[in-house]
Amino acid sequence: MKMALLKDKSLTQIGLVVDDIEKAARAWSKALGVAEPEIIITAPVEQARTEYKGEPSTARAKLTFFCIGPVMLELIEPVEGKSTWKDHLDRHGPSLHHIAFEVDDIDGHLIDLNGHELELVQRGEFEGGRYAYLDGQEHFGAAIELLEIDSDIDPE
Amino acid sequence: MKMALLKDKSLTQIGLVVDDIEKAARAWSKALGVAEPEIIITAPVEQARTEYKGEPSTARAKLTFFCIGPVMLELIEPVEGKSTWKDHLDRHGPSLHHIAFEVDDIDGHLIDLNGHELELVQRGEFEGGRYAYLDGQEHFGAAIELLEIDSDIDPE
Repeated sequence: MKMALLKDKSLTQIGLVVDDIEKAARAWSKALGVAEPEIIITAPVEQARTEYKGEPSTARAKLTFFCIGPVMLELIEPVEGKSTWKDHLDRHGPSLHHIAFEVDDIDGHLIDLNGHELELVQRGEFEGGRYAYLDGQEHFGAAIELLEIDSDIDPE
Repeated sequence: MKMALLKDKSLTQIGLVVDDIEKAARAWSKALGVAEPEIIITAPVEQARTEYKGEPSTARAKLTFFCIGPVMLELIEPVEGKSTWKDHLDRHGPSLHHIAFEVDDIDGHLIDLNGHELELVQRGEFEGGRYAYLDGQEHFGAAIELLEIDSDIDPE
């Protein structure tokens, strides 16, 4: 019997893929009544070490974040390279992409996927942590992201 | 200048449309390490007074809910009638459908949509409250649900 993969993990983020992040950020700012947050771009492949479907990818995206109480809303506009973001946008248009759970140890969780009908689709690094997207569409009805935040960045 | 539609509102729910709610509920139960919650069916049109694209609809769906900290994960399997749930499932397959914000007064919010590039797609009643889905795909990258919970059910 495998351990429950997401037991007691916090759902910390909802990710939306959009085709125009400036437009989407304006719409959300207006609706939420908050200032437009900074838009950043993900690091190049040498730093992000992005892998998509098991192969290194030059995928990059523009990102921005809105804090809504305990949940972060992440807007993602793919800008280059093969990625789950670009694939999702091409197939479905601007739409909800994933829900993210914060975990302590992504590698440990990825080893434990067996039996959960979830496949690793994409992984990468960012300043202060790393992520992995799991394909849960067929069985879970959603892509699931595992997020690991380095403890020296977010001390607990 | 219109009031910010979602200012200080809580993001309380994430909705997923699935094609087999029993299968999806099993997958989520296993991953979250919790018991499978009860699956209910929405009320018939006479009680739910469902309207889809401005017309009465016999839409019904099976629903089940997982509490993940402050956020409710709602699984939805459309079972009959025209609805945003069925339309979404036909177009996109099992996937994330909406994020929901709790508001005090749905009708007041619907009057105030002007200027927010959001259109009312579907609305209805349930025991203890009412809901409205807004089409935010193009501008917001997501369908947005407004949820109003009657104060005698959820006293504050």
